[in-house]
Amino acid sequence: MRRRFLLLAHRVPVAGNFTLNDLAGGAGRMDELARCVSTALTVSNGLRRDTEVTVLFVAEPPPKARRIRMEGARVRYLNPDERSTAALLKNALVRSVSQEHDVESSPGLVVGPVDPAAELQRFLSEPGALWLSEGGTALREHVGDPGGFAAVLSDPLDPIPAEEELLRRSSIPRISVGPLSLRSSQVIDLLHNEFDLREARAGAPERSAAPAP
Amino acid sequence: MRRRFLLLAHRVPVAGNFTLNDLAGGAGRMDELARCVSTALTVSNGLRRDTEVTVLFVAEPPPKARRIRMEGARVRYLNPDERSTAALLKNALVRSVSQEHDVESSPGLVVGPVDPAAELQRFLSEPGALWLSEGGTALREHVGDPGGFAAVLSDPLDPIPAEEELLRRSSIPRISVGPLSLRSSQVIDLLHNEFDLREARAGAPERSAAPAP
Repeated sequence: MRRRFLLLAHRVPVAGNFTLNDLAGGAGRMDELARCVSTALTVSNGLRRDTEVTVLFVAEPPPKARRIRMEGARVRYLNPDERSTAALLKNALVRSVSQEHDVESSPGLVVGPVDPAAELQRFLSEPGALWLSEGGTALREHVGDPGGFAAVLSDPLDPIPAEEELLRRSSIPRISVGPLSLRSSQVIDLLHNEFDLREARAGAPERSAAPAP
Repeated sequence: MRRRFLLLAHRVPVAGNFTLNDLAGGAGRMDELARCVSTALTVSNGLRRDTEVTVLFVAEPPPKARRIRMEGARVRYLNPDERSTAALLKNALVRSVSQEHDVESSPGLVVGPVDPAAELQRFLSEPGALWLSEGGTALREHVGDPGGFAAVLSDPLDPIPAEEELLRRSSIPRISVGPLSLRSSQVIDLLHNEFDLREARAGAPERSAAPAP
């Protein structure tokens, strides 16, 4: 994968026991998380085949934490709206409750138990790793890896202290997209666009955006 | 207003007779429209007070067309999620069905009948007017008006022929954000960020982002 996102979700009920009619409330800001997933993986009428999104649901103690991984090249049933995206994630969480191993709950979407700290640590050593956070180096001035990125975002709350410490102790660059405090989904749009423009300038072959399945 | 958006909505039922549970289907892509409104007017935990969004609902013949205008400085009850944003717009459309004049259906949100062509024509003469469309001049190379912009987007379909003709015959610049065909909400994020960065470089006073009401 050339573009990877790791989203830290701190309030979504890990067992998927929330209603789709109150995503911004009882679902622990699943609305913003669904927007993040959606805008990371889709363009107009298509999917970003080179993008992978991992979500760590760390609202509960580690034994209950879950990881969802979605691959743009394989994912199906991902519609652009918040509600259906949230439904896809909710169904995965519900399916995973009684599972001790990863399961592919829908094509291109794998869910399973996770040690969030170990997973974050592993992600920080990926090529092109960066931490999107206010007060960092300006994105447009960040040289980065021309091959892509592995970007950590915390949504919608700040990282918890243990995550913050891992992030600070790693040597990955802290990157900021602009002077305002933006929503995570907005930050994702800006990071993708910066790399779209860099690839176009570098004369990369036409980016692969597949029609939505 | 320093930043203005005009969104052309072609399929949303103008009388507001749609369910909030199927925004991407029967509601004529109200999901994308709600995302556009939301991402145009909000940042993390706040509103863009300098931004105004106008939506032209032109799915029906002109006598039924409706305009909704929302001011970032005055709007209330605008939550970040798609469903509640769509509910705010739907309630406005429903309230307006039997009205022959503008009404403020909620604080900072005015709805009323409109002649879409005349409204679009008027908007095209605003300072900083531009048309966000594929194949235009690169946004980052567009000199523009330092005072802001008045941006036309069509969502999610292309402009209808009459609108397209008005846009082409006007002398406003056609601006493109990057090499890929993006969703309208993504385009809005990129335009805002470009002007956020320009204002920061110009040493403008701290941008006004008010806490959400």
